[in-house]
Amino acid sequence: MVSEFEIIHRFFQRELAAPGVLLGIGDDAAILMPDAGSALVVAVDTLVAGRHFPDQTDPVSIGHKALAVNLSDLAAMGAQPRWATLALTLPKADEAWLSGFAEGFFALADRFHVALVGGDTTRGPLSMTVQVQGQVDAARALRRDAAKPGQHIFITGTPGDAAFALQQLQAGEAVEAALLARLNRPEPRIALGMTLAGVAEAAIDVSDGLLADIQHMLDASACGAQINVDAIPRSQALLSLDVESALTCQLNGGDDYELCFTVDADRVEQVYQAAEDSAVSIAEIGIIEPQPGIRCVHEDGSPCTLKVGGFDHFANNHD
Amino acid sequence: MVSEFEIIHRFFQRELAAPGVLLGIGDDAAILMPDAGSALVVAVDTLVAGRHFPDQTDPVSIGHKALAVNLSDLAAMGAQPRWATLALTLPKADEAWLSGFAEGFFALADRFHVALVGGDTTRGPLSMTVQVQGQVDAARALRRDAAKPGQHIFITGTPGDAAFALQQLQAGEAVEAALLARLNRPEPRIALGMTLAGVAEAAIDVSDGLLADIQHMLDASACGAQINVDAIPRSQALLSLDVESALTCQLNGGDDYELCFTVDADRVEQVYQAAEDSAVSIAEIGIIEPQPGIRCVHEDGSPCTLKVGGFDHFANNHD
Repeated sequence: MVSEFEIIHRFFQRELAAPGVLLGIGDDAAILMPDAGSALVVAVDTLVAGRHFPDQTDPVSIGHKALAVNLSDLAAMGAQPRWATLALTLPKADEAWLSGFAEGFFALADRFHVALVGGDTTRGPLSMTVQVQGQVDAARALRRDAAKPGQHIFITGTPGDAAFALQQLQAGEAVEAALLARLNRPEPRIALGMTLAGVAEAAIDVSDGLLADIQHMLDASACGAQINVDAIPRSQALLSLDVESALTCQLNGGDDYELCFTVDADRVEQVYQAAEDSAVSIAEIGIIEPQPGIRCVHEDGSPCTLKVGGFDHFANNHD
Repeated sequence: MVSEFEIIHRFFQRELAAPGVLLGIGDDAAILMPDAGSALVVAVDTLVAGRHFPDQTDPVSIGHKALAVNLSDLAAMGAQPRWATLALTLPKADEAWLSGFAEGFFALADRFHVALVGGDTTRGPLSMTVQVQGQVDAARALRRDAAKPGQHIFITGTPGDAAFALQQLQAGEAVEAALLARLNRPEPRIALGMTLAGVAEAAIDVSDGLLADIQHMLDASACGAQINVDAIPRSQALLSLDVESALTCQLNGGDDYELCFTVDADRVEQVYQAAEDSAVSIAEIGIIEPQPGIRCVHEDGSPCTLKVGGFDHFANNHD
């Protein structure tokens, strides 16, 4: 049987001299030195087996996703990732599983120069809570409450893919690898988020579903929006569906971890340039309006009548 | 049914202007401003129902303990608590339970001026991960690896009480209220920890058991210790036990969240004064020695022959 201390030591403790880490894993707490003048940005997310990822998900993907969903929150603030902690609850100390989980976690952490500085391992039903610490110039941070009428609304990537992949999995169908990766290995939009800080206005990452998350942004900003549903980019996979099914995935599906953000009209060109520099595709999908609520329309201006619904762990059974 | 957003809003979102909080609950991440020149101290701990607290534990105690075990880690670093996040996994949204949990959590948070700045609520088997952020002058922080031969070893309070309370609970016996509080409502030694920063040398909080945690400190410091087991303060409750049972609780029991720390001989008087100022009882229980290992002795110098064992979630079934 692998002990708790062996788990920490063998799989998670690495001899890296990470910037700003005065004391890492192995004490009661980590000691970190943020850059002078920067604000600290802190996000935390829990993944529960069978709820945030299907039970059969491979451990490399789980390790990736546990960190990715948190980095996505930092991206939505325009923050630079620095440090992470990992609280891991395991039914048993399975070395192959732990090795895969660590591989997925650190592969992503290394890409974004995130140091794992602490954590906790406990025995129980499989779940994990990752917290990330980043930094940002507070005056340039992207917030949910900064949307104002007239701002253009943008989305990265092709939302809806993760929901479609999950639908296929749950129906017992084969899922094409690229589509499955959109569910299991979401790509946090860190480079773009950092470039957008001080350029874009409001931002949110799309985890509950595009319309639900836009509504969160609108609630915080006390305004509304018109969304052109035909302008939302659709992946090859979604093009195989009828329009109504595809739009349902795009508007209501969760787990995309794309960035939705608003931009003043005179900075739209700057934002397209930022996206090109970050090699992330973006699309303009609507406009902020003064009256509350979301008005979904088609390209020709006719109203879109699809039922709207977001992801809420406690109100729905949708996972 | 209470929704995720209602839970956050009703039970955990408070309109407090907390120092250093530029943006609190309600965005993708919190934005915090640490004091200039201070290092950031980060600790994280998970509590799982049935493992870290008995299933029948009242929610007020669970809320207290979830934060207390983390604050205890900050105390062991000599850090001042600042901010916390809470990731809460619940089988269902039970309003009475949530109200009790929030009461216990915030009562302790308010005492130490800790602001809850973010979190996550998910559905699943009951567990919670709290992360606390504190600050410290990095040069004065207490670390596990600073023990050196000749230093005096101290312990706060009366270790072993939590283990004795748990024994009684598991045997189905009535537990006296003050003793039960030692298990359910541990008191983080924050004021003393902060006073000891720059005065004491090595420190650790006792969560796995006194000997196990002293051994962690010795491992990190590459030295050993002699412990006078008769010098470990014994509560009234433990005095009712035979000496061997009492010592087993004191040496091997977990969950005490007392501070164990080492002090240079010329600062012992200063440490007694610090304890008096913080209204925390302390006792000198041994001395750091060059040779590895812990040598337990009685007051008269004869060896103590009790079996030594710590708390390890994966190696033992001890919880």
